This record gives sequence, C-alpha cells and structure tokens, in this order.
Amino acid sequence: MNTTAKVLDKIESLNDLKTLNINELNLLADEMRELIIKKVNTIGGHFGPNLGIVETIIAMHYVFNSPLDKIVFDVSHQCYPHKILTGRKEGYTNEECYLKYTGYTAPEESEHDLFKVGHTSTSVSLAVGLAKGRDLTGGKENVIALIGDGSLTGGEALEGLNNAAVLNSNMIIVINDNDMSIAENQGGICNLLTDLRLNNGNVENNFFKSLGFEYFYVEDGHNIQTLIDMFSKVKDTNHPVVVHIHTIKGKGFKPAETDKEPFHWILPNTLNHLDDNLQSENEDYNSITKDYLLNKVKEDSSVVVMNAATPGVFGFDKQYRKLLGKNYVDVGIAEQHAVAMASGLAKAGAKPVLCVMSSFIQRTYDQLSQDLALNNSPATILVYWGGISSADATHLCTFDIPLISNIPNIVYLAPTCKEEYLKMLDWSVNQKEHSVVIRVPMADLTSSGVEDNTDYSVLNKFKMVEQGKDVALIGLGTFFERAKEVKQLLKLKSGIDATLINPKFITGLDEDMLNELKSNHKIVITLEDGELDGGFGEKFSRFYGDSDVKVLNYGSFKEFTDRAPLNELYTKYRLTPELIVEDIEQLL
Amino acid sequence: MNTTAKVLDKIESLNDLKTLNINELNLLADEMRELIIKKVNTIGGHFGPNLGIVETIIAMHYVFNSPLDKIVFDVSHQCYPHKILTGRKEGYTNEECYLKYTGYTAPEESEHDLFKVGHTSTSVSLAVGLAKGRDLTGGKENVIALIGDGSLTGGEALEGLNNAAVLNSNMIIVINDNDMSIAENQGGICNLLTDLRLNNGNVENNFFKSLGFEYFYVEDGHNIQTLIDMFSKVKDTNHPVVVHIHTIKGKGFKPAETDKEPFHWILPNTLNHLDDNLQSENEDYNSITKDYLLNKVKEDSSVVVMNAATPGVFGFDKQYRKLLGKNYVDVGIAEQHAVAMASGLAKAGAKPVLCVMSSFIQRTYDQLSQDLALNNSPATILVYWGGISSADATHLCTFDIPLISNIPNIVYLAPTCKEEYLKMLDWSVNQKEHSVVIRVPMADLTSSGVEDNTDYSVLNKFKMVEQGKDVALIGLGTFFERAKEVKQLLKLKSGIDATLINPKFITGLDEDMLNELKSNHKIVITLEDGELDGGFGEKFSRFYGDSDVKVLNYGSFKEFTDRAPLNELYTKYRLTPELIVEDIEQLL
Repeated sequence: MNTTAKVLDKIESLNDLKTLNINELNLLADEMRELIIKKVNTIGGHFGPNLGIVETIIAMHYVFNSPLDKIVFDVSHQCYPHKILTGRKEGYTNEECYLKYTGYTAPEESEHDLFKVGHTSTSVSLAVGLAKGRDLTGGKENVIALIGDGSLTGGEALEGLNNAAVLNSNMIIVINDNDMSIAENQGGICNLLTDLRLNNGNVENNFFKSLGFEYFYVEDGHNIQTLIDMFSKVKDTNHPVVVHIHTIKGKGFKPAETDKEPFHWILPNTLNHLDDNLQSENEDYNSITKDYLLNKVKEDSSVVVMNAATPGVFGFDKQYRKLLGKNYVDVGIAEQHAVAMASGLAKAGAKPVLCVMSSFIQRTYDQLSQDLALNNSPATILVYWGGISSADATHLCTFDIPLISNIPNIVYLAPTCKEEYLKMLDWSVNQKEHSVVIRVPMADLTSSGVEDNTDYSVLNKFKMVEQGKDVALIGLGTFFERAKEVKQLLKLKSGIDATLINPKFITGLDEDMLNELKSNHKIVITLEDGELDGGFGEKFSRFYGDSDVKVLNYGSFKEFTDRAPLNELYTKYRLTPELIVEDIEQLL
Repeated sequence: MNTTAKVLDKIESLNDLKTLNINELNLLADEMRELIIKKVNTIGGHFGPNLGIVETIIAMHYVFNSPLDKIVFDVSHQCYPHKILTGRKEGYTNEECYLKYTGYTAPEESEHDLFKVGHTSTSVSLAVGLAKGRDLTGGKENVIALIGDGSLTGGEALEGLNNAAVLNSNMIIVINDNDMSIAENQGGICNLLTDLRLNNGNVENNFFKSLGFEYFYVEDGHNIQTLIDMFSKVKDTNHPVVVHIHTIKGKGFKPAETDKEPFHWILPNTLNHLDDNLQSENEDYNSITKDYLLNKVKEDSSVVVMNAATPGVFGFDKQYRKLLGKNYVDVGIAEQHAVAMASGLAKAGAKPVLCVMSSFIQRTYDQLSQDLALNNSPATILVYWGGISSADATHLCTFDIPLISNIPNIVYLAPTCKEEYLKMLDWSVNQKEHSVVIRVPMADLTSSGVEDNTDYSVLNKFKMVEQGKDVALIGLGTFFERAKEVKQLLKLKSGIDATLINPKFITGLDEDMLNELKSNHKIVITLEDGELDGGFGEKFSRFYGDSDVKVLNYGSFKEFTDRAPLNELYTKYRLTPELIVEDIEQLL
C-alpha cells in the first residue's frame, strides 16, 4: 500500500482543505481511506465505521468552520477521518505515531474535539446544550451532531431529538445511516430508515418530520460534491434540521462492505488472514456460556438470550443467533429497555438472560433498581469484561460493583472458575426468587475440576477454601487467583498460613464467617477487580470497624484512567502479591 | 359529599362490572370520581391524573379480562380507579381504610397489579417483556401498556416503543393524553400530540405510524361507550397498536381542569382552601435557591436554570418560570438529556444549574459519568430531597450518595446551613474546573448567622467545628445537627468532649485531618442521611482500616422501605442520639 499521501501533504489545517477542488477532494478521500485501512490493520480499531464516513467528514469540514462551528461526534468511534484533517494526520501517516492519538474524540488533543465520548447516543443532547449556550451568549455558529443510525435508538438520543426539535434556532443533526449497529439494527426506527432509503427519503410518515425537524436525504453518502451542496444548503439554518445520509459501512474495502459485522472493529492483522477461521477452539467463558444457553434453550422454550447491540462481545455470531432462533433478542442500542424487558419476561414466567458489558450496564441503574430489583424479578444478567484494564477512559469496566452491589434485593455473584460459574448460571436461570447478576470472569478460563454443589439460594455464604490464621485473604472473582498467590508468597516470606476465602457473593457479607475470623486473625485483606470506592471491600472495613481486626482493601482508585498499561495500574494500586505482602508485613 | 356508592355496591369483582349497562357505567364513573375527590382531599395524593382516567379504566376493565389480560401502568400514579374496581374499593369508600393501599400499583395487594412502579416511562418495555414471554410460552392474552403523554418523552419509553413496534404480535399501547406532564409538556412529541388532538388524529407525519404501529385516536376520552368500542376493536389484535386517547386532567373538578399543574398532586384539605394563598412566607431552602438563581440570571444571561418536568418540587411556579424567561429550561421527562445538555451548556461557556430529585437522578448514572464527569464540564446539579424518609418504595431518596459519590471527578457537596449552601452554590456556578453536585438539605432551614468564606476550590477540606478528644463525630449535611446532639448527650452521659466535624465534601476525605485524629481519638463516628452501603461512611472505615481507630458508620440499610414511619427507621438504623451514645459507651 502507498502511504505517500499526495493531496494530504497539502493539508496542514482545515483552511487548506477549503482550497481544494472536487477532484482533489476525491483523491483525498482515497488517500485517507488507504491510511485508515493500513493503520487499523496494524494496531486494530474501528474499521467499517471510519471507512464509511470519509466523504461526509471531508464535506463537513469543507463547508463548516470548525472549531467555531461545533461538530459533536456520537460514540466518536468514527472520528479517524476527522483527526486526519484536524492536525493529527501523523497519527495515520507515521507508524511510529499510530498510538499517539486515541480512537475517540479527545479535547486534550485538539480544539476540534469538543467532548471525550465513547458511549452511544449522547451527541444530540450535548449539541442541544451547545446550541442553547450559543443562543444565550449571542453566538451565531452552527452546531452539528453527527450520529449513526444505530445510536439513534438509545433513549438518550431520543430524549435529545425530542428537545432538539423545538430549539427554534440553528441545529443540524447529521444521521450517518449505514444500516447497521455493530450487528443488524433493531426496531421501528430501523424499519423507518430502511423505508426512507428505499424511497429516496420520501415516505408517508416521516419520524423526523413528525417531531418537527426539517428533513433532507442524501442517497449517495460517498459523493463529496452532493454532500458539500447539502451541507451548504443547511449551513446557518435558523431551525433544527435532520440531514439523513446513506453511507456504506466499510466503504472501499469489499469484504467489509459485504459482511459488515466482523469489520466493525478489527484486531491487528485481520486483513492479512481473511480466509482463516479465527474462531478459537479453546474453551473460554464465552464458549461455555454459549453452550450452556443453547442447551438450555433447547430444553426450555421460555429461556430468552438477550443483548443490546453488542452480540460480538459475547461470541454470539450469526450462526449462533440463528440456532437460538426466537429465543434470541437483540434490542438494539437500548440498554434501559433491555433490563425492563427482562423484568417483564421474568414476570411472564420466562427465563431471560441478558448479556451486557460492564461499561454499558452503567446506562441502566434506574432500571436495575426500579424495574428489576424492586420487583424481585427473577431475571439473570451477565456482566462481561468487569475489571481493571488498559481500556480507553470511555470504556472502563471498573464501576459495575459500586453501581450494582448497592442496589437492594439484587444478588450479584462473582465466580472464580468454570464449575462455579456454570452452577451459578444454572441456579439463577431456574430460580424464581431473586434478580441475579453474575460477573462473568474477564480472565482465562480456570477449572477446579470439581463439580460445584453449592446451593446458591442460601445467600451470602462464603466458601472457606483454606483455614489458616493471623491473616485472612478474601479474593473476589477473578482476583481469587491473586489471593492464592498472596497466600503462597506470604507463606514463603513470613511463614504465615493465611486463611483463604472465596466470597462468591458480592452483595452481602457472611457475617458468621467474618465473626469467627476475629478470634485468631489480625488482618483481613480484600481484593476486588474494580473500584474500591463504594465497592466490595469497604463493606468489610465497615463490618470490622468496631473490632480489633485490621482491614486492607485492594482494588482500583476512583479515577478515569485512559489506556494506562495494566501493570502500571496494578503497581499504582499496590495490587501485586509482592506489594500486598509488603503491606501485610508492615502492619503485622 | 355522598359516599354511598350505589352502582359500586354491586361490584365485588371485575365480572360484576361486565354486567352493567352503559347508564350504570356512567353512574359508576361519577361515583368513583366522587370517592377519589374525597379521599385525596383527605389524605393527599395524585388528584388530576386519577380524575382524568376514570372512564378509560372502566372501559378497559369492561373489555379486557384482567388478570389474564395484562395491564401495565406507567408511573402508576393514575391507578386509583383501577384499585377501586379490583377488590380494593374499601380503600376509597371507608375512611378508616384510606391508608390500607398504596398510591401505586403493588403486586402484594392484588393479582391485577403486575409491577411495583413509581418512576416514569417504564410501561412499554415491561409490557414488551410480558408479550414476548407470552409468545414464547404459547399464551394468547392481551398485553396493554397505559402510558401518559408526559411519560412518552422519557428515553426508556422511546426505546420501548422502538422495540414494541416490531413485536409482530399482540401489544396495545394506550396513550392517556391529557396534554400535561406535571407541568406543561415539552418537545417535538408534545407538539405532535397537540397536532393530533387538533386534527382528530389525522396528521401528515404520524410519529407512531412512522415507527410501525397501527394508530387509533379517541377524541372524547370520557365517553365510556366510545372507549369500550375502541378497546373492543383492538382487543386480540395480532400486531402492535397505539390507542391515543384525549382526556382532561382533573376531569370533573373544575378548578383542576382549569389550572392543571397545582392539582397534579395535592396535600390534604387543599380543596377546602382553594382561595387561600398557601405560599409560605418563610425562608426555606427552596426559596433561597430561587432567589439566588433569579438574581444570578439577572446579572449573567448565561445562567440556565434547568429541570426535568418537576418544577413544582423546587417551587418553580409559573410566575417564577416567567421571570427566568429564556434562562429557564424544562426538558420534560428526560433526565438523561438534561444532564448531557447541562454538559453541553457548560462546554459552550454557559452556567447550567440543573435541579433534580434524588430519586430521579438515578436515571442518569451514565450521563453523570460519561457526558459530565469524564469531561469535567462545570455544570451545577442540585439534588433535592436526599435522605431517609417514609416515602413509597418507588420514591426513596437514600441512594444518591452511593450513586454519585463513587463517580470520578465529581465534587459532591453537603451543606449544613443556609450560609454554606449559598456559598457552595455561588462557587459552583462561577467556577470552571469541576462538575459539581450539591445535596440541597432536606430539612428546615438553619442559619449559622456567619458568612461562609470557605474557598471550595480547595477540595475535600473538612471543617473542624469543635476540637475535642477520644470520640470524633462526623455529621454529613443534614445530619450535622444530629452529630451535635450526639455530642451534647455524650458530654452529659459520659463527660466526653467529642470532636465535631462538618465534612462538607461527600466525594473525598480530608486525610490530613483524619490522620491527626489518630493521635488522641479512639472512635470515629460517621452519620449520613442515606444508604450506608457504598456511601460516605464506609470510606472512613477503609481509611482507618489499618489503624487502631475504631469506626462506626450510621445511615440507612440497603433496603427498599415502603412508607415506613421515619422514627421506626431511625430506631432500626440506630440513628438516634441515645442509641449512638449507647454504642459509643459500649465500645469505649
């Protein structure tokens, strides 16, 4: 591939872009596309969304005057072309700079990035705020929200549209319609958009017009001239408009155009092995979950496997979804609806299992509390990816324990191995008493080799794994292995036979066991793979607050880390066996 | 008023209802309306919503067969007529039973109540779950969601509609359109509904049809025969339909029909003093907030006073809203949008102040985290009503500290008196560094009489109010007064001069001060007006976990209490000065 970007060489600022003619702009699109393909295939990242938006971004920056005019990106996983044009092209032309800029908008990088964004459906509301602020302070700039068709179905976006429609001043909502979320879109809005695409924007009942927007349709979202004309037309509008642009996700890379879902986000070197079957043969927590659920669906037609637009995270590929048939529900980007619907399913006697990433369960606090837990609806929610990681600040998965575990009635479980996990899952699916959440281990699969016969309906009963003395180590979920390492090292360095406990339950203390520890333990250590503040360990500190037992809690700090190396985080949080043993020795 | 309900006497079950002729049904409506007026004026409650829905409920129960057919109430504050008809009429006919049944649907009361509900916009999603469960288990019953026009604008409802539209089986969404939220409706959907009402259901772009629903309109929502005909028509539909019913909020009580907002929910005896000006002359936290904000708006046109459909909670009556003019924003029922919009406003250089009830801030966790705090947007959020109360389980205000205080970057403040509150508010509105939340005291106004000169930009600095020894009392916000009482009683009973601390900051510890306490304090006591789990006090327990200082945390337990008398709760939580002193003496 040729990385000598000839037109791009001319562009140092957006002013340079505005001097190009249409041929040059078209060449520029090709050059940018090539850079994006090469970079994403090298370091991984969002592939299809960025290839699909190149021409739209070029035309936007050609017509509007960022940063005076304000462009808000939804999710912002489609911001690569924008970054190339706004002073950050070296992040795409120079391999050594590939990691210099994040994959999302980042105000600390550029004045052209207004918000740090990573969750969906936020752009319209943020833009309404910018527009209202402009109107109050006498500004005249354009405010533009760029939102994908998938993000449109999120409640926050719909609340935003309802309010944007009555703004009575400049507000331009650009809908990048590539007919996909990560997987297929879902719902009435999806059908409406399809209808609009099939009829060149003319339908009997137009959703956007019904809300009060002026509506424009662009059939060829890869024709820069058409896009420039359209944006020029709506520029400086004095009322809210929707510009609906039909684009092709993965545009310019045939395999991604044809089979969009696997190319939404790709791992490094994916394009070099397109014909390989990359499906792992090894058992992992995804595969055993899939196997369990499929078998369960076969034996019980009331089991419903649910998710909100991210089936790939759970390994629910097309074939698997087909096998589940009517027992599979993807609600689209609509996490709140998913939780409430699960409660309704449970009330109807069905057995819903909702799979959600830790970072996105954040969108459902009130539904977990009111729709689910207050009703003790026996739904099962599987939280994936919970734990400390080197993720972007927008996608951290460290907050689910504080979020979920302080809601009354919910039983939140943390398995430490395959056998426990499957037993908990099976118990949860079949019981009718509790709203249950299980934190699917974000770790390689471990197996105890021993069947788990625990009756999980006896709540908050911890497992005493090894009875020792002086020091008790309580390792939650994936950090149980770490507690075991601490025990070994402590034995080696201090000769102490520490007690080892697998708590299993995040949402309650085994007070009997904790009281017994008082007799011959000086220190209780808790380890959790997530935020300390409001989390699991603090409950032990409170419990022992009136006693002589000392407690040390280990977990992550209350902070938004951003692509921080995992080992650095572990050191900072003193979460290595060496540092923990050091702390214990100092305290003893 | 006549409480001898003649037709109602015949109704012991819904089967009896189905034997009545239309004249009897009309009489029944009059009788029920009379009962509701009398009861609500006696014990308080939701007035307008219930008067407006009488005929709809009668017709629904006449046509459908509850509990086989499933009716889901949105918010469920309009369930009084339903309760009268489903075996609970004594709660309305017999004054001694007025408190026997809650003001919301409650499954523990009746099989006709499916969910415990109190927050808005949940009915459609819950109903979609019931319908999908029915379809999987071979049921044939009707599933009906009854939702008000105000609730329609909440994101969860819109997510639900998007999914309900493609259900491909029986689903009946009844929109009770009385052209009001608690206050005026807001946004494009509101305009659309107005348009539909003005045109007998016929408009060019129909929102519901655009999503894929079959749509029906009923202009006279108080004509039982018309309603019966309509429900009979959609009964057993095999696809999703919307029945849009125009009703009059407060129907049958003229003052409530004319001026709807003050009659949404009324206090006992309101109807006996309609001509009195009930506005309090006394200063309280609402009045000083209003005064501050109005003055601020006058001097700075970038200040924006925001709320989400509950202006009455904050005392923002029509006159006040008019005074604020364009600097007042009610986003309707759309809390997520409100927080994101506030972030956008702050980014645009404006000064947003968003007022929200503690119970409803729960709907915005992800927006607080991602849209606001991750961006350090300098918005101000005022959380009202936070604290332990005898509220319904659906409206508890004890969870805001665990919810908000564990989100990174947010500065959450707890003032203890008028002067502190106003200083914090003024600091927050004028600063540009932090996302700030202030817990407006849910208490009578107290005044220190001394101007607060604290610089709140120095974060997490506690105020040492009285330096004592042995025992340190840390009283957060409204519970600072309680800490003072404990101090007095402790002095009296044990002669101990306890240290008294006003922490002010909920979101961080004054580690210097806490370290200093170690030298001559044996016990640290924390008091917070909210849930202990994940809350304020546990952070102190963690902090002192490795020391000899003992810590006792006082607050509410992790539970959904339901209209529990406040004093019972205080006793249960050992939150009285007597019990706390008892605990201290035992520990010393």
